[in-house]
Amino acid sequence: MIKKLIEGIKRTGAPIVVGLDPMLSYIPDTIKDEVFREQGETLEAAAEIIYRFNRGIVEATCDIIPAVKPQIAMYEQFGIPGLLAFKRTVDLCHEKGLVVIGDVKRGDIGSTSAAYAVAHLGKVTVGANAFAPFDEDICTVNPYLGSDGVKPFLDVCAANDRGIFVLVKTSNPSSGEFQDRIVDGRPLYELVGEKVREWGDSLIDPETGYSEVGAVVGATYPEMGRRLREIMPKSYILVPGYGAQGGKGKDLAGFFNEDGLGAIVNSSRGIIAAWKNEKYAAFGAEGYAEASRQAVLDMKADIASAL
Amino acid sequence: MIKKLIEGIKRTGAPIVVGLDPMLSYIPDTIKDEVFREQGETLEAAAEIIYRFNRGIVEATCDIIPAVKPQIAMYEQFGIPGLLAFKRTVDLCHEKGLVVIGDVKRGDIGSTSAAYAVAHLGKVTVGANAFAPFDEDICTVNPYLGSDGVKPFLDVCAANDRGIFVLVKTSNPSSGEFQDRIVDGRPLYELVGEKVREWGDSLIDPETGYSEVGAVVGATYPEMGRRLREIMPKSYILVPGYGAQGGKGKDLAGFFNEDGLGAIVNSSRGIIAAWKNEKYAAFGAEGYAEASRQAVLDMKADIASAL
Repeated sequence: MIKKLIEGIKRTGAPIVVGLDPMLSYIPDTIKDEVFREQGETLEAAAEIIYRFNRGIVEATCDIIPAVKPQIAMYEQFGIPGLLAFKRTVDLCHEKGLVVIGDVKRGDIGSTSAAYAVAHLGKVTVGANAFAPFDEDICTVNPYLGSDGVKPFLDVCAANDRGIFVLVKTSNPSSGEFQDRIVDGRPLYELVGEKVREWGDSLIDPETGYSEVGAVVGATYPEMGRRLREIMPKSYILVPGYGAQGGKGKDLAGFFNEDGLGAIVNSSRGIIAAWKNEKYAAFGAEGYAEASRQAVLDMKADIASAL
Repeated sequence: MIKKLIEGIKRTGAPIVVGLDPMLSYIPDTIKDEVFREQGETLEAAAEIIYRFNRGIVEATCDIIPAVKPQIAMYEQFGIPGLLAFKRTVDLCHEKGLVVIGDVKRGDIGSTSAAYAVAHLGKVTVGANAFAPFDEDICTVNPYLGSDGVKPFLDVCAANDRGIFVLVKTSNPSSGEFQDRIVDGRPLYELVGEKVREWGDSLIDPETGYSEVGAVVGATYPEMGRRLREIMPKSYILVPGYGAQGGKGKDLAGFFNEDGLGAIVNSSRGIIAAWKNEKYAAFGAEGYAEASRQAVLDMKADIASAL
C-alpha cells in the first residue's frame, strides 16, 4: 500500500493528507438545516450531515491529493449511525482513487489486536465467507503495549497489502509527559522509533524501498522529527499538527528524505473548515468545498517552498 | 460510578468482572447453526450469534457478579453489525443491573479524545437533542499521549458520573518493552501510576474514598501490582491476565487494599469458554452458560482463599 501512496504523492505533487475530522460546527447551516428537516435532530441525521459534508470536500479535492485521513472518533461519537458514515466515507474515497488512512489509534494485546487489525485492514471470516469490515488502506496504531500489540497488525498488513502508522511522537502539548522521558540517555520516542524500524524491516516494498510501517510524528516538534527521520529512514512519517495546531511549512523540511519523499503532512481543520477562516471568506458557506480545494493548493505551495 | 461498582462487589462478595470477549470458536455449534440457517453466513449473523451467546452468559451470571467488560475489538471485527451487538450487550447488561466496563483502550488528543469520551461515557448533542451513543459506565483509556489525551475523559466522567481505567502495566509478555523502561531510576509504569493518582485526585467519591480514575495492571506482574497499589491508594485496579493468561489467585493479594477493596479481577476466556475446558466438560455445549456460572464461583473461591 505504501507504493500506492507514494505514486499518489508523485502524481499530485502534494505530500498532503486531508483529515476528514468533521465537527458539526464546521458544517454550513444549509446542509444541517436540510437534513434536520428531512430526518429530525437524530444521530442518523448527524451522520448523514457529516457524510454529505465529506462528499463535498472529497469531490472538490480528490484530483489534487493522494490520501485522506478520517478520524474515527469524530464518527464514533455519533454511535452506530456515525460509524456507518465513517464506512460510507471510506468507500466513497476508494471510488475516487484515494488512499484511506484510518486514524483509529487502536492497540491491544494478542488476539485482541488481531481483531482490530482485521476490523480495519483485513477480512473477517464468517462461515465460508470473508468480509472487509471497515476496509481502510492504512491505519494508525498505539504502541504502548509493545510488540505483541503491534505484530498482529503486521501480519494483517502482509496478507492484505496494507500499512500502519505507529504513534511515535504526537503533536499535542503534553505528548512529552511520557514520550520525552529519558531512558538510557535518550527520549522514549527514539526507542519507539527504533522499534518502528525493526517492525518495518520485514515489510519493505521492493519497488520504492519504503516500509509498510510508518510513524506519526507531530509537525509541532521539528527537531525531534529530524532525529526520527534518521532513526527510521525507510518509514514514511505521517505529520499531524500542521496549520491549526501551529506547525508551519518551514518546520517540515526535516521530516522528508533527500529524495523528497518520506513524509506526508496532514491538515484537518485548516482544510475542511477553511471556509470559516477569514482568508477564504469570499467562498462563503456554499463554497466550503471550493474553499477546501484552495486551502489544499495553498498548503501545497507552502510545503513546496519549504523543501 | 465507582460507588456503584463497589456496592456490587460488596453485594456479591465477588471482586470479579466477566470479560465478554466472544470469539466464534468459543460459541456452541447449536447457536451458530441456528443463526446461520436463519440469516446466512453474514456479518449480521455473526453479530447475532455473539449477542445470543453473551445473553446466555449474562443471564446465568448476573446475580453473582458486579460487572462485565466487553472488549470492543471482538465486536468491531464484525463491522457495523458487530458494533450493534456491542451496544445491545451494553444495554442488556444495564437491564440486569451490571456495571459495564467498555474495554475500548481509546486515547487521542484534545477534541478527539473528547469525542471518544462522549462516544463511550457521555452524551452527544444533535440540535436540541442529546444521545448516549454507546453508554458504557466505565471505559479503559490509553495514556501514551499524556494529560491532554486523558483530561477530556475526566471532564465527561465528572459531568455524567462515569469512570475510567487507565492502562498502566498491561498483562502481555512484551508490555515491558516501553512500560518497564527506567526513567529517573524508576520504571515508566510508575510514572504513569503517579499521573493516574494525580488525575484521580479531582474525582474522589466522598462516600467510598475511591476515585473514578482507576488503573489497569496485569495479574501476570504481581510485584509491580503491589508497588502500584502503594502509588495509587485511591484508585481501583482492574486486573486482567487471571486464568488463561497465567495469573493465579495467589498472585492477586498485592493488588488489594487492606480494606479488602481496591481491585477487580477480569477473566474472559476462562469464564465464557469454560465449557470447552476439560474441568467443566460435564456441562456440555448446551450447558455453556451454566459452566460459566460455575467458573465464576470457582474463581470467587480462588480469590477469597488468596486474600
